[in-house]
Amino acid sequence: MKQSLGAKTILCPLPVLVVGSYDESGRPNVMTISWGGICCSDPPCAAVSVRKNRYSYGGIVKNEAFTVNVPSAAQVRQADYVGTYSGRDEDKFAAMDLTAVRSDLVNAPYVDEFPLVLECALRHTIEIGVHTQFIGEIMDVKIEADVLDENGRLDVAKLQPFIYAAGEGGYWAVGGSIGRSYAVGKK
Amino acid sequence: MKQSLGAKTILCPLPVLVVGSYDESGRPNVMTISWGGICCSDPPCAAVSVRKNRYSYGGIVKNEAFTVNVPSAAQVRQADYVGTYSGRDEDKFAAMDLTAVRSDLVNAPYVDEFPLVLECALRHTIEIGVHTQFIGEIMDVKIEADVLDENGRLDVAKLQPFIYAAGEGGYWAVGGSIGRSYAVGKK
Repeated sequence: MKQSLGAKTILCPLPVLVVGSYDESGRPNVMTISWGGICCSDPPCAAVSVRKNRYSYGGIVKNEAFTVNVPSAAQVRQADYVGTYSGRDEDKFAAMDLTAVRSDLVNAPYVDEFPLVLECALRHTIEIGVHTQFIGEIMDVKIEADVLDENGRLDVAKLQPFIYAAGEGGYWAVGGSIGRSYAVGKK
Repeated sequence: MKQSLGAKTILCPLPVLVVGSYDESGRPNVMTISWGGICCSDPPCAAVSVRKNRYSYGGIVKNEAFTVNVPSAAQVRQADYVGTYSGRDEDKFAAMDLTAVRSDLVNAPYVDEFPLVLECALRHTIEIGVHTQFIGEIMDVKIEADVLDENGRLDVAKLQPFIYAAGEGGYWAVGGSIGRSYAVGKK
């Protein structure tokens, strides 16, 4: 029997995405979001939702670019920190001993220590409500060699990503494989 | 050292969302997507991306509504099945022994067997490329009582959700808790 929880943003699992951008004076900044993901296959696009009052907002608008960085479970403290404090008040890269690398493809920095990075060029800006959704075309995906399998593909067990449970407030590890897409449900 | 994988939709973790809608003649249909999630806190909104050639597309446009249903790991076979086959060819509810329940709030069905449901009224339709993004306002969240904790909140360990790894193609269970948001990264 289902019961109502009201009109709320309760959804699980959601990704934990660290969004990299230059601010309006060119300094690198990062913030963590869970309102985002992939939104189109061709052109390949990622979406990230940011509130207008967030420090990252102005830089993404000005530079028309952002990166999406995926931390490993061992980096949960850094990810939560950069989602808690503002780049207005401090250099979050310095505070968390993270390294900003200038993308060759878009005007945004990525986080060297995080294993998976998407470099995105801003294509659409959607005003929804308190959040603005930025849709960026993925110009390249960069990945650490040590999270690839022997065929050069992403190895989830090596990446050790983690999820956010919206409405519950926790971060949870990703566990074991339970099947392949277009396979486990085949007739 | 990072290496390039090219301009591709490689991202992990992503949710596995079963989207419910009525087709243009009023029959319930479901499809599974991973290009979606939460995109705004106020009004609370969810986004789902659907290709124009998918059977669900016309029904969502006509009825201006959809539901987002979250299956548990034990339901991975059903979720993959409804993401593999088309409602043009068969009644996927019947094929998977799933029950369509008419939402009281929006003109879309939800899946009775799946533990977490968002009922969404279509608010924005964004043409991105091969995918159209539907943004719906969450009118209510419905949840099975047996995935709530003693305080009436979502219990992730009971929900047992699972993720999709885009670019790798696998479904993976959600494991143990690794911290609380706005807590594990506090100064």
